Amino acid sequence: MEIMQVTGSLVCTQRVSGLAHCNLRVLRNTKGKLSVGVDPVGASIGNWVFTTSGSAARLACPDPSVQTDLTIGGIIDFWEPDG
Amino acid sequence: MEIMQVTGSLVCTQRVSGLAHCNLRVLRNTKGKLSVGVDPVGASIGNWVFTTSGSAARLACPDPSVQTDLTIGGIIDFWEPDG
Amino acid sequence: MEIMQVTGSLVCTQRVSGLAHCNLRVLRNTKGKLSVGVDPVGASIGNWVFTTSGSAARLACPDPSVQTDLTIGGIIDFWEPDG
Amino acid sequence: MEIMQVTGSLVCTQRVSGLAHCNLRVLRNTKGKLSVGVDPVGASIGNWVFTTSGSAARLACPDPSVQTDLTIGGIIDFWEPDG
Amino acid sequence: MEIMQVTGSLVCTQRVSGLAHCNLRVLRNTKGKLSVGVDPVGASIGNWVFTTSGSAARLACPDPSVQTDLTIGGIIDFWEPDG
Repeated sequence: MEIMQVTGSLVCTQRVSGLAHCNLRVLRNTKGKLSVGVDPVGASIGNWVFTTSGSAARLACPDPSVQTDLTIGGIIDFWEPDG
Repeated sequence: MEIMQVTGSLVCTQRVSGLAHCNLRVLRNTKGKLSVGVDPVGASIGNWVFTTSGSAARLACPDPSVQTDLTIGGIIDFWEPDG
Repeated sequence: MEIMQVTGSLVCTQRVSGLAHCNLRVLRNTKGKLSVGVDPVGASIGNWVFTTSGSAARLACPDPSVQTDLTIGGIIDFWEPDG
Repeated sequence: MEIMQVTGSLVCTQRVSGLAHCNLRVLRNTKGKLSVGVDPVGASIGNWVFTTSGSAARLACPDPSVQTDLTIGGIIDFWEPDG
Repeated sequence: MEIMQVTGSLVCTQRVSGLAHCNLRVLRNTKGKLSVGVDPVGASIGNWVFTTSGSAARLACPDPSVQTDLTIGGIIDFWEPDG
């Protein structure tokens, strides 16, 4: 999974039917690269999240037939060094 | 999903049978890298779109047995910062 | 899918059984990176082709159990800007 | 698989249900890039591990329906040049 | 598939059960990046090989439930420019 920050939402009136009811977020990784992901956890702008890619991204959605390759898996509270 | 811009179409008379009836588009990402994707939404040249890759790209096509690894998922109207 | 150019063939006497009867081609992408792909369309050296990666690469082969992650999907005739 | 070093743990109170009971680790690859992976082997901070990505990452978990795309596959004792 | 060179073996006493009986090799690609792959063909150090990634990597193993995302597909004898 990757660490990314939510930077906004995406407005698309014309999209494939399987993504019709999905909340699409614009995400920025630590290198500044922008991606688009489905958000099933309700993240807010500025939140740091971790994202799941590939076929696992579909399983992380309430409806596993959603046509996504990137889904937010959780909102990061903080990182804790071990021990 | 990735944010890309449609830059043209691809003409291929000789191709694998499963892609015979697909509309293939040349896409450029925000770094300038060119890719080829299937277009089920009818995007025009210059449109900014988001694309789905991997196995999800097949599910985003009307015929899910199409042999694609990149499919346009929607045309971007605009980005809306949250809140 | 990616745009690549055929630069040669690969000779491997010792390989996994599932790739025994495949024509393996050396491909170069637009950045100069070399890859190896299965060729079901009969491309010649110097041809520009588009390639399918991931699980879709297996579906693009006549035998879909072939253990490939990169398959030539078609030979590019030319690119046509829309409109 | 990739070679990575465990640098810490990730605390996320709000996450998708399928990752509820997973131990999430922050991992750094040899280029310094950070990722998040599931840890089924009990690695400690500082350990060098190898990680499995993609759909194989799910199979490497005790529960193969876990929504991960990166899982620690083993702790590296040492590398041994052949012969 | 990618072109890589075998640089050594990996010793891991603690690993996930599905990789218990696999021969793990350290591989270097043409850019110098190191990866770990399963070796079902018996390559030696210094050999140039091609590797299969993703879900196809599992199919290239004698036991297709092995939790690998990179498997050696064959040892390269030489490259032959066409025609």
